[in-house]
Amino acid sequence: MSLLNMEKSEQAELAAQVRKDYAELKAKGLKLDLTRGKPSRSQLNLSNDFLELPGATNYTDAAGNDLRNYGNLEGIKELRTLWGRLINVDPELLLAGDSSSLNIMFDLISWSYAFGNNDSDRPWREEEKVKWICPVPGYDRHFSITERFGFEMITVPMLEDGPDVAAIKELVLDPQVKGMWLVPMFSNPTGVTISESVARELAAMETAAPDFRIVWDNAYAVHILGDEFPKVLPIVDIAAEAEHPNRFWAMSSTSKITFAGSGVAFFASSRANLDWYLSIAGIRGIGPNKINQFAHYEFFGSSEGVRAVMRRHAALLAPKFSAVERILNNRLGEYQVAKWTEPEGGYFISLDVIDGTATRVWELAKEAGIVLTKAGASYPYGKDDNDRNIRLAPSLPPQEEVETAMDGVATCVLLAALEKLGV
Amino acid sequence: MSLLNMEKSEQAELAAQVRKDYAELKAKGLKLDLTRGKPSRSQLNLSNDFLELPGATNYTDAAGNDLRNYGNLEGIKELRTLWGRLINVDPELLLAGDSSSLNIMFDLISWSYAFGNNDSDRPWREEEKVKWICPVPGYDRHFSITERFGFEMITVPMLEDGPDVAAIKELVLDPQVKGMWLVPMFSNPTGVTISESVARELAAMETAAPDFRIVWDNAYAVHILGDEFPKVLPIVDIAAEAEHPNRFWAMSSTSKITFAGSGVAFFASSRANLDWYLSIAGIRGIGPNKINQFAHYEFFGSSEGVRAVMRRHAALLAPKFSAVERILNNRLGEYQVAKWTEPEGGYFISLDVIDGTATRVWELAKEAGIVLTKAGASYPYGKDDNDRNIRLAPSLPPQEEVETAMDGVATCVLLAALEKLGV
Repeated sequence: MSLLNMEKSEQAELAAQVRKDYAELKAKGLKLDLTRGKPSRSQLNLSNDFLELPGATNYTDAAGNDLRNYGNLEGIKELRTLWGRLINVDPELLLAGDSSSLNIMFDLISWSYAFGNNDSDRPWREEEKVKWICPVPGYDRHFSITERFGFEMITVPMLEDGPDVAAIKELVLDPQVKGMWLVPMFSNPTGVTISESVARELAAMETAAPDFRIVWDNAYAVHILGDEFPKVLPIVDIAAEAEHPNRFWAMSSTSKITFAGSGVAFFASSRANLDWYLSIAGIRGIGPNKINQFAHYEFFGSSEGVRAVMRRHAALLAPKFSAVERILNNRLGEYQVAKWTEPEGGYFISLDVIDGTATRVWELAKEAGIVLTKAGASYPYGKDDNDRNIRLAPSLPPQEEVETAMDGVATCVLLAALEKLGV
Repeated sequence: MSLLNMEKSEQAELAAQVRKDYAELKAKGLKLDLTRGKPSRSQLNLSNDFLELPGATNYTDAAGNDLRNYGNLEGIKELRTLWGRLINVDPELLLAGDSSSLNIMFDLISWSYAFGNNDSDRPWREEEKVKWICPVPGYDRHFSITERFGFEMITVPMLEDGPDVAAIKELVLDPQVKGMWLVPMFSNPTGVTISESVARELAAMETAAPDFRIVWDNAYAVHILGDEFPKVLPIVDIAAEAEHPNRFWAMSSTSKITFAGSGVAFFASSRANLDWYLSIAGIRGIGPNKINQFAHYEFFGSSEGVRAVMRRHAALLAPKFSAVERILNNRLGEYQVAKWTEPEGGYFISLDVIDGTATRVWELAKEAGIVLTKAGASYPYGKDDNDRNIRLAPSLPPQEEVETAMDGVATCVLLAALEKLGV
C-alpha cells in the first residue's frame, strides 16, 4: 500500500520496523561504494590480453608507416575504419585521439572560448554571456566543464525519447545559447536512448547562433545489458542531410570497453569542424599514441570483435542491474516512495525518491557506510531543485555487495520518506 | 682562405667549380630529409621490448592499485619516483601525464589565458597585451603556441651559457611580460646548456608580473652524444631557494627515449603550481594512461635504466653528428662562409651562413632534393631578420644519406655565398 494512503498507525508500525532495520544496517559497519561508473575487476580481466599488445615486432600499419615515430594527428587508419563501422560514421570524418573523449570535449569548448570555432563571428570569451543547454538529469563531468568556463547552464528535462525538443527550440532562438550537452544512447544517468526523429529535429532546427554546437557524447553506444545492439544513428550524415553539417561534435571512446583510463577517444564531425580542431590540436601536440591505437586494433580485430567484448561485459553487468531493480521493487514497490529506471544499457540506474529527501537518503546511506553519488550530482552546479534524484552505479562492487548496498539504500529511502511525513 | 679575402679570379674559379658541383648534385635526383628531430629506425628498435609490456598479468602497482581502472590524476608513483631521481626533482612535485610535454605546455598557457594562473590578478585574456620572451634561435613549436594566443614575442639572444640574462632582466620590468620559453639543456637548436648561475639569476630576478612563468622545457636532459651525463639542475629547488617557488613550469618527457609519440610527459613545479594545474586537468579528464606509464616503468626498471637506453641512442647518433661536423669543416672551413655548433647532446646542429643567404641555401638544397627545415623556422613568426640560421636535424636518415645530404648542403652554402658576392 502507498505510504501516503496508510493509516497513521500503520505508518508508525512501518517506521518502527524501518528504524530497527536502519540501526541493524549501521551496526554492520559496511564500507560500500556505488558512486561512480567504474568497471569491475572481472570486467577489466576481459581485456588482459591487451596488456602485451601490439607485440614486440608489430609496429607497422598496413600503409607501411612506422607507428613508433612522430606523426599522424588524425590517428591510425585501421582503428578509425573499424570504429567508423561500429558507430556508423565515415572513417574519413573520424579522428582517433588519446585517453577519454572528455579531453576532446574540454578542448573543443576551451578553443571555442579562446579563439572561436569555425562558425564563430568572434571568440566565445568576447560574448557578454554564453549559455548552454543541459538536459537533466545528466552527466556531472559535462556540467563541470561548462561551469569552469562560466557558462550559464539552462536545464531542459530528459524525456523518454530524448531531451525536450520543444523547449530546446525556444532556447536556441537566443544567440547567446552556444551549445548543448547530450548523451544520446543509454544516457547518463537516465538510460534514455534518443529517437531518430528527435535527432533529426535537433539537426534541422534553426539556431540564432551560427556557431551553436551539440556535444553528442555517445559514450555508451555499444554498452548493452541485454543481447541486442541498438542501431547507432549516423549523426554526421543526419547533420549533413539537415543542411547543418557542423551541428554536432560527436564523441565516442573505448573507456569501459578495454581499460578505463588507457583507451582511445574518437571525435566524429564534419570536415570543416575537424579541420578547425586539427589546426589547433596540431599546435598543442604532435599526435596521439599510435602504439596504443594499434594495440586496440589488434585486440578487437574488427567491429564485431568490439561487440563480442561488449557481450561479455553485459554478462557480468546484467545480474547487478537486475539485482538493483529486484531489491528496489521488493523493498519499495508497494509503498510508492520511489521510481527508478530499468535501463537496457549504460552504467547507471536513476532513482527518484520523494521530493526533498534525496540529500537525506544520501546522508543516511553515508552514515551506514554506503557511499552514493552525492544527491544533485546529475544537475548543473550540483543543484537538484526538487532534491529528488540519486544516481546509482552498480558496476564496480561484487554482486553480493551490490545486493547488500541496495537493501541498505532501500531502508534509507523508506526512512527518509517517513521522516518527511513526520512519522 | 676566406672567400672574402680571395682575389676576384680565385673567386671566379671557385664559383665555376661550385656551379659544376651543384649541377652534378641536382643530377643525382636525391630525396633526402633533414627537417625534423625524429629518431631513426635503429633508435626505435632499441625499445621494441616495450611493445609487449607491461604483460598480461601485470597491472597492479606497489600500493595495490589496479592500473586498469579510472583514477590517479598525478600519474603512477613508481614512474614519478624513477623520473624524479633522473631529473633531480622530488617525485611529490612531479606529475606524469600523457604523450608529449608540448600538450602540457599548451594547456598551461591556454588555462592561464582563460582563467589566469595561481598568481594572476586576472586571466591573461583580459590583459591589454601579453608579451613573451623567446631566446633565439629556439624551438618552432614553442613559438607556434604563443603565436596562436596572440602574444607578442620578444627575442633575446641565446649565449654560450644560456639566454641573455641582462636583456631578460630589463624586459621583465614590464608587467605585460608574462613568461618565457627556455630549453635549458642541449637546447633546440643551439645545443647550449644553461649554466647554474644563469638558472639562479632567472630564479632570483624580480618580475613586474606576479604570474610570470618560465617554461623550463628540459626536453633533452639525458639526450647525450658522448659518454657523460651532465648534472640536471634541481630547478624546482632552485626556485624555492630564490623565494620564487612558482617561477618555473618544468617539463620533461620520454619522447626520443622510447617511442616518439607514445610516451609519457612529465611536469615538475611548486605545490601551488601543480595544484592549480590539477584543479583544471581534473575537469578536462579522468587521468593519464597508467598502463603506458607502468610499461615505461617496467621497461626502464630504474633511472640508471634510462641512462643505459640513452647511451645506446648516443652510439647511433654520434657518428651522424660527427659526419655533419667533419663534412662542414672539410668543405667550408677554409672559406669562412659559415659557423656551426658542435653539440654534446640534443638533436640539432645550428648552422649560421652568411647574412642574407639562409633562405637561398634552403631553396638551392630543395631544388637538389635535400629538404632542410625552412630558414627562419627557429625564430618567432618564422622570421630570422638576418636570414642567417638553418637548423640541421641529422638523426632520422641513415648515416650514408646524412653524409650525402651534408655534402650537398655545403655546396649550396658556398653557391649562395658566391651569388651574394655577385660572383
